[in-house]
Amino acid sequence: MKLKNFIAICVIVLWLAPAVAAQNRSLAERLGYPKDARLLIVHADDLGMAHSVNVATIKAFESGLVNSGSIMVPCPWFSEIAAYARTNPQADLGLHLTLTSEWTSFRWGPVTSKDRVSSLLDKNGYFHLLETDAASHADPKEVETEIRAQIERARAFGIQPTHLDSHMGTLYQSKALFEIFMRVAREYKLPVRVAREWGGRADYLDATLKADDVIIDRVLDINPGVAPNDWGQFYSDAIKKLEPGVTEVVIHLAYDDTEMRGATSDHPNWGAAWRQRDLEYFTSAAFRQLLQEQKIKLITWREVAKLLQK
Amino acid sequence: MKLKNFIAICVIVLWLAPAVAAQNRSLAERLGYPKDARLLIVHADDLGMAHSVNVATIKAFESGLVNSGSIMVPCPWFSEIAAYARTNPQADLGLHLTLTSEWTSFRWGPVTSKDRVSSLLDKNGYFHLLETDAASHADPKEVETEIRAQIERARAFGIQPTHLDSHMGTLYQSKALFEIFMRVAREYKLPVRVAREWGGRADYLDATLKADDVIIDRVLDINPGVAPNDWGQFYSDAIKKLEPGVTEVVIHLAYDDTEMRGATSDHPNWGAAWRQRDLEYFTSAAFRQLLQEQKIKLITWREVAKLLQK
Repeated sequence: MKLKNFIAICVIVLWLAPAVAAQNRSLAERLGYPKDARLLIVHADDLGMAHSVNVATIKAFESGLVNSGSIMVPCPWFSEIAAYARTNPQADLGLHLTLTSEWTSFRWGPVTSKDRVSSLLDKNGYFHLLETDAASHADPKEVETEIRAQIERARAFGIQPTHLDSHMGTLYQSKALFEIFMRVAREYKLPVRVAREWGGRADYLDATLKADDVIIDRVLDINPGVAPNDWGQFYSDAIKKLEPGVTEVVIHLAYDDTEMRGATSDHPNWGAAWRQRDLEYFTSAAFRQLLQEQKIKLITWREVAKLLQK
Repeated sequence: MKLKNFIAICVIVLWLAPAVAAQNRSLAERLGYPKDARLLIVHADDLGMAHSVNVATIKAFESGLVNSGSIMVPCPWFSEIAAYARTNPQADLGLHLTLTSEWTSFRWGPVTSKDRVSSLLDKNGYFHLLETDAASHADPKEVETEIRAQIERARAFGIQPTHLDSHMGTLYQSKALFEIFMRVAREYKLPVRVAREWGGRADYLDATLKADDVIIDRVLDINPGVAPNDWGQFYSDAIKKLEPGVTEVVIHLAYDDTEMRGATSDHPNWGAAWRQRDLEYFTSAAFRQLLQEQKIKLITWREVAKLLQK
C-alpha cells in the first residue's frame, strides 16, 4: 500500500469513527447517561386545542412532573399557548403537526390557504375527522405545504420547537407521508416521535429512517381497554417495569369541565374524563414518589434534539 | 287625456298603491299588530363562538324569553350550533356575519381560502382584532366574497337564516361595506339589523337604504358604563320605557366559566361575567313578569322576514 493511500484510509476511518461509535452506543449513552439508565419524557399532547387543555397542561408543567408537550398550530387556542411558550422559553415544547379535526361539535382547518391544500379538507372545509381518511385523501405535496406552514407559523409566533410529532399519527399512515415528515424534520434538525421498540410498526418506517436519525427506545401510552378505576395502576405498573433507555410516555391533559365535555361529548376515548384522569395521575405525589423509588430520570426532547444540532 | 293614457295611469297607481301604503304604515302595522303595540325581539349574539355561548343561549331559548339569535359561521363551535339549528328548524336564527376575531388567546379566520381575502387578515392570518382595523384594511370585493361564503356555508350546514347582522358592527363602518351588506341581504331576501331611531347614525346608512328595505324601529343594548349591580335595573327601566314599534334588544349570553374567562381574560367588556349577567336577567322570573305587566309582545325576525319574502 502506498503511503498516500494509507493516509487516505486513515483519514476516512477517523472521519467515520464518531458516527460509527454513535450508532453502536445507545441513545442514553449518547445523551451522557449510563447505558442502564431509565430515562423518561413525560409528554402532554394537544396543546392549543382548547383552553381546558392549555391550563391543565401548564398546571402540570408547574408540578415539574410533566416536562414536555406539543402544540397544535391550527387550533383555536394556539395563540394562548404560544404566549406561554414566549414567556417560558425553557419549556420543552414541540409541534403536534395536525391534519385531522376529530371532534364533531368543535372543528378547525389548515393554516395554509384552503385552495392550496384541498386534499386535506372534508366536505365541510375542515380537516378530516379520522387519520385514516386524512391519509387516504392527502396529496403528499399538500401535506408538505401544510406541515411547513404550521412550523413557520409557530416560529413566527416566537416558538422554537424542540421536537415534532403527529396528531393522531396521521404522518405515520403511509410511506409517502412518513418520508415527508422525516425530510422536513431533518431540514429543521428536529427529532421526531419514532420508537425503536414500536410493536408491529410498518416496514416503511424502518426503510425510511437513516443512520443519523435519532430514535428513542419506546413510547408508552394508555389505551381505551384500561378501565377508569385501573388508570393509576396501569401507569404505575408500566413505570415500575420500565426498561433502560429513553421512553416517552404520551399523555393527554385537560380538566373534565364543560368545555371539554362539550368538545368530546360523542367520543369518550381521549375525552374529558380521560384527560382529567391523566392530569391527576401525572401530577400526583404517588407518581413523584414512584419516579424517586425507581430511580427514573426525567429528560426532555431538548436534550435529544442537541444530538442533531451539534 | 286620451282613454288609453288614463288607463295607463290608473294601472300605475293601482300597482304602486300597496307599496306607497306600506311605506306609510308602521312596521308593527305591516306585521299585523296595532300601531301602538310594543313589540320586542330578544336577540342573543355570537352563537358558535364558544361552547359556553352555545349552551347558555340554548338554555335561554328553552325559557321562551330569549327568542332569537345569530350565528358566527367562521367560529370553532359553529358545527355545534348548526346541529341545534337543524334539529330546531323553528328557532329564529340568523347569521352574525363575522370579519373580526377580537379575543387575543382564542382566534379564528375566514371561511374563504385565505389567498382570496388577504385584506381581511391580520399579520397572524386571523381576522383583525378590531372592527375599525377590519374596515380600514378591507377590500370591499373580498368582504362580499367572505360574507357570501359564510351565508353559503350556513346553508350547506342546513341553516335557513331568518336575518343578518354584523359582528362588532364592521359592516356599518363605511358606505362601501354597508352597500355590500344591503345588496347581499336583498339578494337573499333577508332583513338586516338597521334601526330607524339609531342615534347619530351615519348619513350613508340612510342614503343606502331603499324604500323596500324593512327597518325595525330601534335597537337596545347595554354598554360598559352600566355597573354590574345596576344591570337588572338598566334593562327593567329600558323595557318599562319601551316606545311603540319593533325594538330588538341585543344581548350576549354565556356562562361565567373557565372557557369564557380564558377567552375574554383581557377584555372585561362583553366578557364572561357580563354574559352571565345577561343570561340571568333575560331568563329571570322578573323579566317574564315585566313583559306581562307591560303588555310587551315578543316577535321574531322570521315574522319580519316574511315582509320581504311575499
